[in-house]
Amino acid sequence: MASEHTAKAFDTDLQELTRLVAEMGGLAERMIVDSVDALIRRDVALGQRVVATDAEIDALQKKIEERAVLTIARRQPMAVDLREIVGAMRVATDLERIGDLAKNMGKRVAALETDFHPLKLFRGLEHMTDLVQQQVKSVLDAYAAHDLPAAMMVWKGDEEVDAICTSLFRELLTYMMEDPRNISFCIHLMFCAKNIERIGDHATNIAETVFYMIEGQAIADKRPKGDMTTFATTLPNT
Amino acid sequence: MASEHTAKAFDTDLQELTRLVAEMGGLAERMIVDSVDALIRRDVALGQRVVATDAEIDALQKKIEERAVLTIARRQPMAVDLREIVGAMRVATDLERIGDLAKNMGKRVAALETDFHPLKLFRGLEHMTDLVQQQVKSVLDAYAAHDLPAAMMVWKGDEEVDAICTSLFRELLTYMMEDPRNISFCIHLMFCAKNIERIGDHATNIAETVFYMIEGQAIADKRPKGDMTTFATTLPNT
Repeated sequence: MASEHTAKAFDTDLQELTRLVAEMGGLAERMIVDSVDALIRRDVALGQRVVATDAEIDALQKKIEERAVLTIARRQPMAVDLREIVGAMRVATDLERIGDLAKNMGKRVAALETDFHPLKLFRGLEHMTDLVQQQVKSVLDAYAAHDLPAAMMVWKGDEEVDAICTSLFRELLTYMMEDPRNISFCIHLMFCAKNIERIGDHATNIAETVFYMIEGQAIADKRPKGDMTTFATTLPNT
Repeated sequence: MASEHTAKAFDTDLQELTRLVAEMGGLAERMIVDSVDALIRRDVALGQRVVATDAEIDALQKKIEERAVLTIARRQPMAVDLREIVGAMRVATDLERIGDLAKNMGKRVAALETDFHPLKLFRGLEHMTDLVQQQVKSVLDAYAAHDLPAAMMVWKGDEEVDAICTSLFRELLTYMMEDPRNISFCIHLMFCAKNIERIGDHATNIAETVFYMIEGQAIADKRPKGDMTTFATTLPNT
């Protein structure tokens, strides 16, 4: 930093960026909860509100990118300061993707208006969503607090979500085999379950960003999961 | 730009960034083609090579981001120069996502080793892939050449892919209804078709980035498609 003035100006810029990321995180969390609520309660209007919120998320991402780039150009931060700015941009990219995935679920609500609605399947989806939403919340808190151990907890906690997803896929497959009339409904739920699993992946990406911001390097180990486990187990070569 | 020296240094940085994006684009295009080839020819080894290539794509994205940020901090570019750098970062983000989607298809090859292999379905997938790969190629050429009309052609050309995806989904649904033993195979193909459709979406994102780089603002109109068309049509409320 060139001077005390520059350092102070940088801090103000960074605070504003962090505030925008927090705002975006709040929207993304709400979209996750609302989209699955809309699916479970067959609330088409709520599904449409989720779809509409995605535009706000997209706008915030562009704003964060713009501010980040201006801050880099104006303040020429180095080392940890630069990583803070790059970190904000990366988290915003993941939150934007989370918004897309929730929006995709919101769109499916209208297609799920059918009489076939086994509560059991929705409970599995709901349980998965609770876990993933908790991961997103925890990792955003860890990002805000620069809490590396908390971020690493999220990074390692992906396995339970994958296990629920696997068992949900297996159940959906059974329903489809039993009665062809269930097929299109179950396919929608499979795509939704996959979306929630992917939201969990973005939470672990954010955990990696927290690691990078604090440690100044990319995380070395690999994530403790095999991405394909769900699928290989659930859909054997029938 | 502060001086002629800075301007020249900036040009060198930008050329290097453009070269890295081109390298990444080449890898992404190959991953698209190889993943679908692997699916069609049930070539598990090729599928695994696609999965392995994804790490290269990820590394290139990080490298592009790093170089872009350093260029902004060192050269403090303004206006169109700044947009060039931001553009390179955005294109790299989309190419990274394309890599992920191709990798996901590569992983499914092992799960598709079954005797049920209707050529007709694969032809649909192949046709979709040809179109999408052409879009990716065209938009990367448009990016390299700063060719706005060519980018806008890609931006508007998404509808044909969506139409093929819709008809493929409908066919897959028929196969699933006919014989429950086809279900898990068809689900894999549905996820693959959806991945290819999403790769097409990333091509249109890149077209929007070209627009932003040249015009200095976000594209005003909305894309000429409804994301949900495929699904609403293919999976009625049975």
